[in-house]
Amino acid sequence: MTDPDRLGARAAAMIEELGAISAEPGRLVRLYLTPEHRRAADLVARWMREAGLAAGEDALGTVRGRWGGGRRLLIGSHLDSVIDAGRYDGPLGVVAGILAAEQVVRSGRQLPFGIDVLAFGDEEGSRFPSTLSSSAACAGVFDDAMLSLADRDGVTMAEALRAYGKSPAEIPAAAYGRAEAAAYVEVHIEQGPVLESENEPLGVVTDIVGASRLRVTVTGEAGHAGTVPMDLRRDALAGAAELVLAVERIARTHHDDRMVGTVGRIQAAPGATNVIPGRVQLSIDLRSATDRIRRAALAEIKAEAFRLVEARGLEIELEPLYEVATTPCAPALQELLVQSVSALGHRPLRLPSGAGHDGQMMAKLCPMAMLFVRCRGGVSHNPAECASPADMGAAIAALIGFIERFDPDRL
Amino acid sequence: MTDPDRLGARAAAMIEELGAISAEPGRLVRLYLTPEHRRAADLVARWMREAGLAAGEDALGTVRGRWGGGRRLLIGSHLDSVIDAGRYDGPLGVVAGILAAEQVVRSGRQLPFGIDVLAFGDEEGSRFPSTLSSSAACAGVFDDAMLSLADRDGVTMAEALRAYGKSPAEIPAAAYGRAEAAAYVEVHIEQGPVLESENEPLGVVTDIVGASRLRVTVTGEAGHAGTVPMDLRRDALAGAAELVLAVERIARTHHDDRMVGTVGRIQAAPGATNVIPGRVQLSIDLRSATDRIRRAALAEIKAEAFRLVEARGLEIELEPLYEVATTPCAPALQELLVQSVSALGHRPLRLPSGAGHDGQMMAKLCPMAMLFVRCRGGVSHNPAECASPADMGAAIAALIGFIERFDPDRL
Repeated sequence: MTDPDRLGARAAAMIEELGAISAEPGRLVRLYLTPEHRRAADLVARWMREAGLAAGEDALGTVRGRWGGGRRLLIGSHLDSVIDAGRYDGPLGVVAGILAAEQVVRSGRQLPFGIDVLAFGDEEGSRFPSTLSSSAACAGVFDDAMLSLADRDGVTMAEALRAYGKSPAEIPAAAYGRAEAAAYVEVHIEQGPVLESENEPLGVVTDIVGASRLRVTVTGEAGHAGTVPMDLRRDALAGAAELVLAVERIARTHHDDRMVGTVGRIQAAPGATNVIPGRVQLSIDLRSATDRIRRAALAEIKAEAFRLVEARGLEIELEPLYEVATTPCAPALQELLVQSVSALGHRPLRLPSGAGHDGQMMAKLCPMAMLFVRCRGGVSHNPAECASPADMGAAIAALIGFIERFDPDRL
Repeated sequence: MTDPDRLGARAAAMIEELGAISAEPGRLVRLYLTPEHRRAADLVARWMREAGLAAGEDALGTVRGRWGGGRRLLIGSHLDSVIDAGRYDGPLGVVAGILAAEQVVRSGRQLPFGIDVLAFGDEEGSRFPSTLSSSAACAGVFDDAMLSLADRDGVTMAEALRAYGKSPAEIPAAAYGRAEAAAYVEVHIEQGPVLESENEPLGVVTDIVGASRLRVTVTGEAGHAGTVPMDLRRDALAGAAELVLAVERIARTHHDDRMVGTVGRIQAAPGATNVIPGRVQLSIDLRSATDRIRRAALAEIKAEAFRLVEARGLEIELEPLYEVATTPCAPALQELLVQSVSALGHRPLRLPSGAGHDGQMMAKLCPMAMLFVRCRGGVSHNPAECASPADMGAAIAALIGFIERFDPDRL
């Protein structure tokens, strides 16, 4: 009955239609609570209704497609995008939820639970400096402080919500009750190269890994590049270069815990060809499956940083910017996904999610699971982002298998 | 008769007066052929006349204070500044020339040569992307292509010269004849920390070191900082960090040749905390006393760069931006400076100039020498730039000693 190829082709067409909704011609920019969000939400609501779901919206603008009674199996992802985005990050999960729910609805099958397909509006944090505000509201952990966060034009989230026709006073009502929410499951592109390198279309997520971010300032002494002898220099960039390599080296030693360490930003001041850098700022992003191991590695990086700057007569400041613990996916739900993937004839790979997702918030409400889909070259947050119709069809078929196997009383 | 303390105090007062002439309140900005240049040139011309010199200007705006007949001993430095400059870089040499010439004039002493004190207008290249155009004209090596170089407002050097009341057609006449120019000598702050670390006020320059500059682009692959495992990364910044350290290491191995190697600029793209850098651009500035050794080290850096990017699966492009050979100071003139410094009771240190100076052009005309003055902390191109009145007095006294010992027929 399930035809993965047909599902994949439909998903590709829907994702293309959603991908055409952008604030800018020629590149995809779809930010939270904008006219583009409105158009995307309206399109998704129409699809939900066509699929036999009752479509509505909550106070954060999350589109909800409801089917059946009883406890809720929540299936979701997001409609907002980064600047110059790909088309799959977010929309694939929404479309997969709609198409899977449609098949269940059309089958006439009775299930001991109902389904809500959720299309969140604020996952990327591209407009406001917020994090996962839509799913936080559904999970009942929305922080009212987010309402005062302003976008680049000075518009606060509260103002933008009102302009979008929503009332911040109704946010508490967007929360699911704990008894009501049976589980949350999300289909998402991997955004990494593991599935491609393993030659498999699907992966069962073990956990959404925790992350620590630091802002680092290395201070030495600026000087004329021609006149200060090497042995009298306090070159902040040379010290920073050692730190970049230390982050890489330490992350590699914890390969077993799938640790990754990245210096993505670096700025040297004053930044002239003929001036020794006196100050360097850089970012450190460290992620690992196990919080304890990540924290130990962070301590190791800090100790190494102090050691190497001391050896060079430099100074260093390491400011923690962000810290989030690892969120495990529910083992029972992982098992259902493994069974569904195996039933399709695929090898049920397990892998952690290095990126953050709405599941981090939803896990505060109920058991959470994620199914990853191979994406070409592991590329994401980029117009070149791509998942094949065949892989998307396999994912939707696996999601249908998950729904068929799901039992809210056996978790 | 020579009173270093009095000369130093006068120099300090004159430098303070010059330092107040700026395009901006609160910081020193004095660019070539601007109203500030005009005011500084007029002040210097007045000082020259008060010192007993005949003041004039050439076609590039260089102020020339002439005394006596016969072959010319040229003593000069520059009046233009970098943006947010110190007060000593340039003006000290002009003021030292005027005060030394004044003492010779006042002494009534007969010399077998005449003196021209030169106040150049374009040494820093801060307004036009030119190099040492004023001294090039005096040396007879002015390149007419410089006339078409434009400043940030699109004004060419030719237009700016005309607006300053000069005629580009008269530039050839600004050149000294080879028989006419006996030698060029310049007093300048060291712009480095060597004299301070040696606890000496004065240093005799051995040569103005050559330099090679490269623009380097390291290309890898951008990716999500959370999702790409360490062993699948092609991190351009990690490769660039190794190159930064290789430049430092190779420069240090040629310490005997006083090599210095600097990476002053670095930019990582896309430059986000959670994105692996896909492309890094950086600058390499390499200087050394011996051209052969500098070129060999440059080849060594390039070979190391290719080796390390290959090991990481990265690509690299190294573009030569600039190359200038080492300009030796005339040994006979160095010897006169050594004698003059020793006669003042100071240790006659010899050191190379890592920075470029008008002497590089003047050496194309005649024998050239430079006397360095200790500056606090080695700081230059910075409002904190400072030379003490005592050290400046010692420099002027040494310059007077040089003039007294100078014989145009014994070079």
